[in-house]
Amino acid sequence: MAKALAEAEKALAADEIPIGAVVVFENQIIGRGYNQTERLRDVTAHAEMLAITAAANYLGNKYLADCTLYVTIEPCVMCAGASYWAQLKAVVFGAEEPKVGFRRHGALLHRRTQLRGGVQADACAKLMQQFFSMKRK
Amino acid sequence: MAKALAEAEKALAADEIPIGAVVVFENQIIGRGYNQTERLRDVTAHAEMLAITAAANYLGNKYLADCTLYVTIEPCVMCAGASYWAQLKAVVFGAEEPKVGFRRHGALLHRRTQLRGGVQADACAKLMQQFFSMKRK
Repeated sequence: MAKALAEAEKALAADEIPIGAVVVFENQIIGRGYNQTERLRDVTAHAEMLAITAAANYLGNKYLADCTLYVTIEPCVMCAGASYWAQLKAVVFGAEEPKVGFRRHGALLHRRTQLRGGVQADACAKLMQQFFSMKRK
Repeated sequence: MAKALAEAEKALAADEIPIGAVVVFENQIIGRGYNQTERLRDVTAHAEMLAITAAANYLGNKYLADCTLYVTIEPCVMCAGASYWAQLKAVVFGAEEPKVGFRRHGALLHRRTQLRGGVQADACAKLMQQFFSMKRK
């Protein structure tokens, strides 16, 4: 999660909503991404999507069944859907996202994907608070 | 929908699950895509995702509030999530997808997005049947 947080810091520095993600395979990071929806003007450029695409590219396999996605904030519906297709082994997120997080829509992940939340939640949430308090000024 | 079907035909020719999509703005196609998950080895390369990204790139705006997405098959959760973020004016699909279509998970689209299904459903479904019957042989 520390590496996902480092990605989120990159988003913050780029004036993007600070969410970062990494995909880990055999204790190695094989994909990383941070939110770039503003720079790319593309709603699909969420941290998780970029990390999943990068990891699949690295493995030469669209299925990431032995991989874990770490992401600083609870994924949205789109990213949960991508995780479903990738059949990830596990999704680990930092802070909850009650408003646009996927969990309010039920079980959207693949049945074989383990889900864990609340990992370094305070540090993950703090970056978001920092961003939005800057925006309000 | 005829143009989305033409995209789906391209997927069929490329030995991909034949789903096609176009995004229309002011009666003009500004984004198109067909499923390329095999060629790109990327679960995120669904027709709708590629069409949405292309349309946003064309407009220079990640929001597609005045655009309609036409897609040959009911979108999945991921693509419904992308449509939510894009705040599409309307999503029009051809054939239903009871198994992995988003509708079984409830209202995942943006509240301002109109949804219509069953447009040229037979032609859309027929391409899928053609693909899967070839695969079984």
